[in-house]
Amino acid sequence: MRIALDAMGTDQAPRAEVAGALQALSELDDVEVVLVGDRALIEAELAKHGPMPERLLIHHAPDRVTAEDPPATVLRRKPHSSIVVGLRLHQKGEAAAFVSAGSTGAVMATSLFTLRPLPGVDRPAIGTVLPTAQAPCLLLDAGANVDCKPQHLVQFAHLGSNYARNMLGRAQPRVALLNIGEEPGKGDELTAEAYVLLEREEGINFVGNVEGRDIILGICDVVVCDGFVGNVLLKFYESVAAFIIALLRKELDRISVREKELEDVFRVLDYAEYGGAPLLGVGGVSIICHGGSPPKAIRSALAMAARAVRSDMVGHSARNLPVGTETQEAQ
Amino acid sequence: MRIALDAMGTDQAPRAEVAGALQALSELDDVEVVLVGDRALIEAELAKHGPMPERLLIHHAPDRVTAEDPPATVLRRKPHSSIVVGLRLHQKGEAAAFVSAGSTGAVMATSLFTLRPLPGVDRPAIGTVLPTAQAPCLLLDAGANVDCKPQHLVQFAHLGSNYARNMLGRAQPRVALLNIGEEPGKGDELTAEAYVLLEREEGINFVGNVEGRDIILGICDVVVCDGFVGNVLLKFYESVAAFIIALLRKELDRISVREKELEDVFRVLDYAEYGGAPLLGVGGVSIICHGGSPPKAIRSALAMAARAVRSDMVGHSARNLPVGTETQEAQ
Repeated sequence: MRIALDAMGTDQAPRAEVAGALQALSELDDVEVVLVGDRALIEAELAKHGPMPERLLIHHAPDRVTAEDPPATVLRRKPHSSIVVGLRLHQKGEAAAFVSAGSTGAVMATSLFTLRPLPGVDRPAIGTVLPTAQAPCLLLDAGANVDCKPQHLVQFAHLGSNYARNMLGRAQPRVALLNIGEEPGKGDELTAEAYVLLEREEGINFVGNVEGRDIILGICDVVVCDGFVGNVLLKFYESVAAFIIALLRKELDRISVREKELEDVFRVLDYAEYGGAPLLGVGGVSIICHGGSPPKAIRSALAMAARAVRSDMVGHSARNLPVGTETQEAQ
Repeated sequence: MRIALDAMGTDQAPRAEVAGALQALSELDDVEVVLVGDRALIEAELAKHGPMPERLLIHHAPDRVTAEDPPATVLRRKPHSSIVVGLRLHQKGEAAAFVSAGSTGAVMATSLFTLRPLPGVDRPAIGTVLPTAQAPCLLLDAGANVDCKPQHLVQFAHLGSNYARNMLGRAQPRVALLNIGEEPGKGDELTAEAYVLLEREEGINFVGNVEGRDIILGICDVVVCDGFVGNVLLKFYESVAAFIIALLRKELDRISVREKELEDVFRVLDYAEYGGAPLLGVGGVSIICHGGSPPKAIRSALAMAARAVRSDMVGHSARNLPVGTETQEAQ
């Protein structure tokens, strides 16, 4: 299979993208990676790694999306950007998936416009896999939508449940609602109403409310929430983990303990292991990475994309989703 | 000064309360602690610590609030509970402050009914001090209010700013709005509107939006948000910190490194250092602790209460707060 990788996404593109692609190719025999971006820059970077490897292609895209581009305008105003060109390759079937560490808003908006929401999905959501004390847990929405309505959280529950079953290997995914108390009726207007809908929804294994403290315990497979809360939580977690890693490194150095001796601790904290976050509910595989992604995270995201294609993530994504009554919203 | 301490609040009351009170008394010369709760239980616990120390009093309260009691009914239905009796002591001026590790909802509701919101405060908020890479930062609201309106966040900004100036020693507290992007106009309806109000509000040093990742960097003194988001974030942080502490302890033990050698790391993670969270915007000092508080956290909360009394926290609390146009809401 062929995966399109935006080569211009990270803060120091295309360095991390090229290194990450090379790592992925050495591990994934059935994958071809198309680096989408400025050909000269990509070739210069590739030259540092020796001869051009097999299964690595370049697709020239002269333009680049910046943080200043309003996401909704990118498709129209930057048709030759790596994000638009890469997603068009996927849309036309010339790539089976798309991975980018560029502007999250731009990747999201352009994915929506090109890949389109699946039937029954009013608002595609970003799913993020969080490490826990047990198996990892999928949190969604991690930032694609704010001011969600209760029925959107129900759609997230289906999307997340299908992802956990299909991609994380959970037979009967436990779906929880992120809230500020465990009892039914707790929370704000959104969660109080969503609880009622989720409780009577068929096709998901709803286990009730969970609080912020329950996520890390790993007592559920999927946690649904409004994208505002999910985004704040995710960014907070990443920064706390990074902060603790830095603090630990300094202190271990001081007492002359090698980092390797505490690798279990670092692995739990190291978000790069988890790579990217899929945009769930669109008619394609679009994986969004951090702007600060190191090569390891790009490699993980490419591996995730390959797994999504192999397991037909898109075909399973909207399973059990009742086709909504709400008009499809333009995002 | 005399501080009323709910002796029946923690999960293993009155053990942590008695031990915490004794610690506080040994450190704070000018403080008397009144243990409010079941006299027989308190005396039995005290007996384990030797003779009754000076400056420790017992005020009998035969009843106890449980997690099952709806918070708003506690004042009326459990008038002889330790929470109501303790807050009445404060209300009548027989204690200068109240500290409890009982049901947060019950302490909050009963504090509102007895101590009353200050003029200009529609919704008192729970303030929580979070450790950061620099000086600690005050997050509010940490869970007293959900479905906030933009003007409530403006009130939180004043309450937080006054607390940071008065209690945390920040001359010109930097107040930020928790959001999912840095630019003005980002966020959900609440934060987009609150930004506009905060920008033109006088008497606060508004520094704009911060994201979840910015909190731990310590780039502001006060972060305001809706209580739903604040509560999820706070509980998540506590659990992540506790999880990492447990993991670190296990691993350090395995490689025979003593915990003391990494005490800087543990101190940052150890939430108990910070003790309690004040309810800001009411006409009294009411400090809310975790149900799982160890003696150290109770001691810290008593010290915080003493500092709040000494620095006239209540007198400074509503400074600069324009008296609102909204009718005072019953909580």
